[in-house]
Amino acid sequence: MMKQYCVGIDVGGTTVKCGLFTTDGSLKDKWEVPTRKEEEGRFILPDVAEALKKKLAETNLSIDELEGIGIGVPGPVEPDGYVHTCVNLGWKGHWPAKELCELMDGKVHCAVGNDANVAALGEMWQGGGKGHDNLLMVTLGTGVGGGLILDGHVVAGVHGAGAEIGHIHVRDGEQETCNCGGHGCLEQVASATGIVREAMRNLKASSEASAMREFGDQLSAKDVCDCAKAGDALAVKTIRTSMRYLGLVLATVSMIADPELYVIGGGVSRAGQYLIDLTKQYYEEYTPLLNKKAEIVLATLGNDAGIYGSARLVLTR
Amino acid sequence: MMKQYCVGIDVGGTTVKCGLFTTDGSLKDKWEVPTRKEEEGRFILPDVAEALKKKLAETNLSIDELEGIGIGVPGPVEPDGYVHTCVNLGWKGHWPAKELCELMDGKVHCAVGNDANVAALGEMWQGGGKGHDNLLMVTLGTGVGGGLILDGHVVAGVHGAGAEIGHIHVRDGEQETCNCGGHGCLEQVASATGIVREAMRNLKASSEASAMREFGDQLSAKDVCDCAKAGDALAVKTIRTSMRYLGLVLATVSMIADPELYVIGGGVSRAGQYLIDLTKQYYEEYTPLLNKKAEIVLATLGNDAGIYGSARLVLTR
Repeated sequence: MMKQYCVGIDVGGTTVKCGLFTTDGSLKDKWEVPTRKEEEGRFILPDVAEALKKKLAETNLSIDELEGIGIGVPGPVEPDGYVHTCVNLGWKGHWPAKELCELMDGKVHCAVGNDANVAALGEMWQGGGKGHDNLLMVTLGTGVGGGLILDGHVVAGVHGAGAEIGHIHVRDGEQETCNCGGHGCLEQVASATGIVREAMRNLKASSEASAMREFGDQLSAKDVCDCAKAGDALAVKTIRTSMRYLGLVLATVSMIADPELYVIGGGVSRAGQYLIDLTKQYYEEYTPLLNKKAEIVLATLGNDAGIYGSARLVLTR
Repeated sequence: MMKQYCVGIDVGGTTVKCGLFTTDGSLKDKWEVPTRKEEEGRFILPDVAEALKKKLAETNLSIDELEGIGIGVPGPVEPDGYVHTCVNLGWKGHWPAKELCELMDGKVHCAVGNDANVAALGEMWQGGGKGHDNLLMVTLGTGVGGGLILDGHVVAGVHGAGAEIGHIHVRDGEQETCNCGGHGCLEQVASATGIVREAMRNLKASSEASAMREFGDQLSAKDVCDCAKAGDALAVKTIRTSMRYLGLVLATVSMIADPELYVIGGGVSRAGQYLIDLTKQYYEEYTPLLNKKAEIVLATLGNDAGIYGSARLVLTR
């Protein structure tokens, strides 16, 4: 029988977000721990364990009432739970689930997953994807991440590259190099950074008036979206280009994994329904084969997707 | 306990291929039945049942010795086994597995799948993908088909579009319309038809000498491959373009589903290792993110992939 509570831990480069949930999906309590990256991040998990024990004591919960503790980490996790390196945390060679379990005196089941995959699980459990078990979550942030869920299970991939949609090649002729070493990746045009870069290129290539010019070097993806919504021609052109490539990638995912839903999250998605509508337009253009198209919706959990999804990890043993 | 035999039925537009297998994967007997498409294909399944009963009698096998009968059909199959329409067979509204089961007097389990997905299962079971359970099978024939298997299970897709890789958009600016209604699909450049079309375009756009010119209107994909292997510059250019787009699509699949293996089959794949080597070159170029790449190999079952895979369908209840 399932116990009443579970815990989700979202380990980020600056803070560790923690959430106490009931196993039926309601968030009871939320707290943060600073991420101590010194000495190859060796204090991170002990800090988490200590804070959690304190929280349990405060709330008069016994560890036996926890179904488990899930951990999301910002880097590749091998199928057996091994984390070879995690640059953002300074980690080299960790077994986060096993180590956290030992730190909790072996009294509770722990599980680990990659943060993008875990965010997808979170949105599936209690967010924009609630009620669906075949979906792709797209995170449009500094980079472009993804989490693919088929039949309720994360597709992590044999080499951990499942749903690495930011590194799908979409644009021939791109001269700049992506973080991955490639040229013309989705991330180079549809991430926050990519949108700004695209806008800068459009501004440079044209002498047209544009409200974006006022921001100078400080132009952000939010500024570009705001200008586009206000009808600024060069901003509209920029956002259309970015969302066309995103729509193309979603269409491609439909021709490979054919999920029923796309959930769009991350900082850029705060521009809201405007982006969804554009993406949908291009997605539909690139999927003439489908009589019935997948839906495209906004994520709803924001920065909490990670704690929701991490907690959800331990409910699927 | 699993029984000793199973049967695979591959329903094609001209003939129905049938195979009797041991459940450990060896093909014992093979026969064909003409596909009678008249009267909306109503005779197809009764003909199959009759031929199968005859075969069982001839070989002194009782139907009780069959683990099951699997059927592959050339069109979309809904998750519950319903076939809404199958143009190639004239079918409108069939439940092939249920109907065949009734025709066999309800004495044996039957299952149905789409032919491309079933071929992938066949290659996984006893072909180029033996020993792997995460793979994409690509069929380069008149069209380009695919079958994706993750953790040993076919990814058929929520709308039946799983692994419809022939209709991934790869080429901007394409003016001709694909069968699906799109423009610039992989199928338009990497199928047998697509290779010929690409060669014709290259011939028309250049006055360069080429051995391909001797074939006139009769030029086939095989001719193009043969000329390319012999070093003919325009043929090499053609095949490189086609295989570059195929390599790009495999790289894209790696960034979504990340399988360990790609199995290339279909008529075009008879050009052999030459095509594999080219595809691999482009695949690797488009996957800088992967330290460890997936393998790309040739299919080995040829036209028997369908009967192998159909038989395999009934071994995974």
